[in-house]
Amino acid sequence: MKGKCIVAQSGGPTAVINASACGVIQEAFAHREITGVYAAHNGILGVLNEQIFDLGAESRATIEGLKTSPSAALGSCRYKVKTDADYARIVDVFAAHDIRWFFYIGGNDSMDTADKVAQLAARRGYEFRVMGVPKTIDNDLAFTDHCPGYGSVIKYLATMVMEAGRDTESMYTADTVNVIEAMGRNAGWIAAGTALARRNDEDGPHIILLPEVPFDREKFKAKVRSYLDTIHRCVIVVSEGTKTADGGYISEQKGEFAKDAFGHTQLGGAAQYIKSLIEEEVKVKARFAIPSTIQRNGIHFASLTDSLEAYEVGRDAVKRAVRGESGRMVTLKRVTGNPYKCVTDVADLAQVANGEKYFPKEWISPDGFFVTRDFFSYALPLIKGEVKPVMKDGLPAFMRFEKHFIGKA
Amino acid sequence: MKGKCIVAQSGGPTAVINASACGVIQEAFAHREITGVYAAHNGILGVLNEQIFDLGAESRATIEGLKTSPSAALGSCRYKVKTDADYARIVDVFAAHDIRWFFYIGGNDSMDTADKVAQLAARRGYEFRVMGVPKTIDNDLAFTDHCPGYGSVIKYLATMVMEAGRDTESMYTADTVNVIEAMGRNAGWIAAGTALARRNDEDGPHIILLPEVPFDREKFKAKVRSYLDTIHRCVIVVSEGTKTADGGYISEQKGEFAKDAFGHTQLGGAAQYIKSLIEEEVKVKARFAIPSTIQRNGIHFASLTDSLEAYEVGRDAVKRAVRGESGRMVTLKRVTGNPYKCVTDVADLAQVANGEKYFPKEWISPDGFFVTRDFFSYALPLIKGEVKPVMKDGLPAFMRFEKHFIGKA
Repeated sequence: MKGKCIVAQSGGPTAVINASACGVIQEAFAHREITGVYAAHNGILGVLNEQIFDLGAESRATIEGLKTSPSAALGSCRYKVKTDADYARIVDVFAAHDIRWFFYIGGNDSMDTADKVAQLAARRGYEFRVMGVPKTIDNDLAFTDHCPGYGSVIKYLATMVMEAGRDTESMYTADTVNVIEAMGRNAGWIAAGTALARRNDEDGPHIILLPEVPFDREKFKAKVRSYLDTIHRCVIVVSEGTKTADGGYISEQKGEFAKDAFGHTQLGGAAQYIKSLIEEEVKVKARFAIPSTIQRNGIHFASLTDSLEAYEVGRDAVKRAVRGESGRMVTLKRVTGNPYKCVTDVADLAQVANGEKYFPKEWISPDGFFVTRDFFSYALPLIKGEVKPVMKDGLPAFMRFEKHFIGKA
Repeated sequence: MKGKCIVAQSGGPTAVINASACGVIQEAFAHREITGVYAAHNGILGVLNEQIFDLGAESRATIEGLKTSPSAALGSCRYKVKTDADYARIVDVFAAHDIRWFFYIGGNDSMDTADKVAQLAARRGYEFRVMGVPKTIDNDLAFTDHCPGYGSVIKYLATMVMEAGRDTESMYTADTVNVIEAMGRNAGWIAAGTALARRNDEDGPHIILLPEVPFDREKFKAKVRSYLDTIHRCVIVVSEGTKTADGGYISEQKGEFAKDAFGHTQLGGAAQYIKSLIEEEVKVKARFAIPSTIQRNGIHFASLTDSLEAYEVGRDAVKRAVRGESGRMVTLKRVTGNPYKCVTDVADLAQVANGEKYFPKEWISPDGFFVTRDFFSYALPLIKGEVKPVMKDGLPAFMRFEKHFIGKA
């Protein structure tokens, strides 16, 4: 089989999703079966809109620069492919440009899309191979030990917690509590990762609020007070997905609901809610921080382990496709924990699309406010080493594609 | 003159205030006139409460570790010395412990305190020398070209803006605008510093809202729309101190005021206000981030230039005091801009205490939404080089003093 390949990035970016793209692109250039290497601009939208650019027209340096540039350099999107018309259009565009390999870097939804595209192509008798490349800071993909992007987000967020935690340690006579909001609507993986910042009883985070543990206001206040009584301060990480026992987000509790400046429902107010609760009911001053998308793009302090694995899963997807595999997502399989060793493996796209990896209940400490040593053993290897950003004038220098669009068929 | 010296840190921490403490401590150990090196725990509160620990009992490695540890390792405070009783108590405590040198690392208020302590000691005939060491991320101290702490906060915040800006660039079809809140209640120095992230028309920040420019809602919306029309996205840095023409903070505008979960006035809501304004009136989705104290403690990506200067002003304060100087703050004087060369100088404490350095109006671009090339020339040298943090298990490793308290006299 000969033909062009296309690579696309989907969903929320990470610090290392470009490393995966780099792995795909550099490996694709090495195979003569692949007669052209294209990129879909802004994920699957780029296919639907036939906004496709030629990566062969980009410099080798630009492509190498993907390894040290955060976010999705090909462009990403949140468009969810649903209709038969959309799927038909995708296969039509691929056929029109002789695109026979599709490498899709993304999470559950992307794997579902990739799977359905492959099925439609098969039904039409269009020779075509698709491989998924895992990506998500949320670390919630099934069948893989962990997801590229996760190691970097927790390394950076844990560092923020360490650094801001030292601020609270020095200023506790004035700013006694600090609340930092972690991403992760549905699972506590990211918030839990900040536990790595805690090396002894003095270090923050002192409390981690996970979506998996229903928020108990009185128990929480008692826990905060126990820290104020002993070390006179408290550093709290709250997952944006933290919920009360009735299943509502903590910031959406009746009668205490923060409206925005226009009187509308304020989403993502977990940190502000906890800050206000502490000031009102524990009676000490609290601050809060919302790192938001900053946390998932920290290439300047990304995990080298994560970056190298992201690159490898990209390369591996191409190698496997060239060997004839299709309809699978590359996974990471931990062979040994100490010393840490991971190899690539695969899982069926359909299975990944329908699976979800929950944060293990047994990794939550008995009081519900921290994680166990087993989580440390799991997560520590994922944050080892640092990506060295290319520097220019005291700041990182990121690549940007020239984007030579191939035109519509 | 022989006797002990004491060093104290005051006000909000920075990434390099410990580098200044390191400079003071290491230089103090080198002079036999200084018979002991003490630290006040939590700034001037440590003197008032006689909470003083002996830095001679700490290991050399711990003291060297100050260079790569953020925030105020001696402890800091926001206590404002005002009463005669407080001043008398300070001099009493110094005399009781034979403390004859006082090195105070801080901003305007600290310089005022140091000055008044020196005056009282002189009136009492207590032989005593005091030197101020400049520190503030706000960069608003008079008589110095810039303040240690400023270079690091803008290097890190500009990096955050670059990285999160790339997130918006890849996700503009869903998350079209991103708003990042910069510290700086009274001056735009920090927000302005993020301009360094912008190397071409594509790069953010596209708009910077400074406290010096009254917020004009219609003009602002038009500016945002102009970016949406051309590059389809907009990355905005808003100073927490941004005000409307009537002098109120933008987040406190009548009728649009965000209350917190308990119905109380929400302070520091500049980013949320701008986010809501854009969603309501420009009709595109916006996100926001509030890095809060994270931005001022980023030792893992601090400016090496800033760190070395912070260390030098600390050392210089001790050298000058031993030579007989007193009642002065060490300043930084830019000798040449290109190549950048700074030397130390001094200013009288009383003058520093009463002065303030405003952001120059002529460095604001004509439309009020950015800064001029002159600001770039000023700020670029301050962010050069990176402090290399000590690493352990994938995260920075910070020192912490053992704090051997000397006991009350």
